[in-house]
Amino acid sequence: MTDAQKTIAFVLYPGLTPLDLVGPLQVLSALAQIDPGYRTVVVGANRDELATDTPLRVAPSHTFDEVPAPFAVLVPGGTVPTLRAMADETLLAWLRSAAATAELVTSVCTGSLVLGAAGLLEGKRATTHWMFRDVLTGLGATPVAKRWVADGKVITAAGVSAGIDLALHLVERLAGREVATTVQFVIEYDPEPPQGALDWDNPPYGDLKPLREYTLREGLADHPELLAKLLAHA
Amino acid sequence: MTDAQKTIAFVLYPGLTPLDLVGPLQVLSALAQIDPGYRTVVVGANRDELATDTPLRVAPSHTFDEVPAPFAVLVPGGTVPTLRAMADETLLAWLRSAAATAELVTSVCTGSLVLGAAGLLEGKRATTHWMFRDVLTGLGATPVAKRWVADGKVITAAGVSAGIDLALHLVERLAGREVATTVQFVIEYDPEPPQGALDWDNPPYGDLKPLREYTLREGLADHPELLAKLLAHA
Repeated sequence: MTDAQKTIAFVLYPGLTPLDLVGPLQVLSALAQIDPGYRTVVVGANRDELATDTPLRVAPSHTFDEVPAPFAVLVPGGTVPTLRAMADETLLAWLRSAAATAELVTSVCTGSLVLGAAGLLEGKRATTHWMFRDVLTGLGATPVAKRWVADGKVITAAGVSAGIDLALHLVERLAGREVATTVQFVIEYDPEPPQGALDWDNPPYGDLKPLREYTLREGLADHPELLAKLLAHA
Repeated sequence: MTDAQKTIAFVLYPGLTPLDLVGPLQVLSALAQIDPGYRTVVVGANRDELATDTPLRVAPSHTFDEVPAPFAVLVPGGTVPTLRAMADETLLAWLRSAAATAELVTSVCTGSLVLGAAGLLEGKRATTHWMFRDVLTGLGATPVAKRWVADGKVITAAGVSAGIDLALHLVERLAGREVATTVQFVIEYDPEPPQGALDWDNPPYGDLKPLREYTLREGLADHPELLAKLLAHA
């Protein structure tokens, strides 16, 4: 990196949902190719391979210690492993410290719950995966049902694939609309969901409250105080 | 795996574009969670970590030898490294053998060029990243400008993010529309491209022929015969 480069750091932890990470990573790495004023890095507690919630294993390019003061941070989400990450003190300590000086603190999906566990959503409007949206209240945030929500330097995205939209929004903020459109052409992002738009009034599943509570209990069994705060809004 | 499980194999090679891989991997792994009749695996020449065209490194779950006869195959794309993969005889040999018995042979982005190098696009209608679409002619295919193109058991998708649409189409084929819609909710795929739809009549870049030719020459410098076939349509 050069002194003038702004570092966009993507956080890894075991068991994450890789599409939460890779959508925005691909978009912002394309920005870095067009504009050498930016670089992307993938950070973790160490450089070891980690499992994801798919058969793919992934590994970071840098350790937390090597990237103490990034320009921007992005935390991806997941299911039970993301709730466990809410109590990972190494991750939370780095995140609090990095967020203090970062100009952008962002998340995709339930990554916002990790931001909340680090105390970064207190008094903020925020979003997450639709299934966990109300749980944000237990972390001091005001849940908002939008594709992404900006409140000051904290920008949170909805579930999984929303990270691509968030990232293209970030490219436009950082480099302007023409560069964002260029990146959109690079990833040929002209979506044609084969089943059409989501019909929120007619979802193809029943009551998810039991699954939501089970996921929270599985992830936070050893952290009863935090668990109770979230279950109160589950 | 159980005897009854159908294996969907995602191919890794050095330098690929990870969003080409991870979009469909996330979607089809969600199918496998809903329907235990399917499993997803990530295959490579060995299980070593590989670089991607971002700072993320990735590693397969299985070797080619461990997955000789998958039900379905998906080949992701990329830039120069994907053209190099077109001459990777280990990968091509596995691909030809796997494709002979697979019921679905699929690709995302320039992954279709690798299918073509393996001789699997001869006489087929196919697509790829828009920038390389005409090059498919040099591999015996008829290029089609669509989000994804099915010709018999060969289904090819357009660039990068088109893999998500392809994968949701595959879920509907394999498990029906309701399961596909459920997976779409799981990944909250309700796209809102911040810059709107791509305007193909007004792209924000100039003539890409020089970049296309450079990419082909960089990737296939050691394979002049194949290079010439592709340059004739670049």
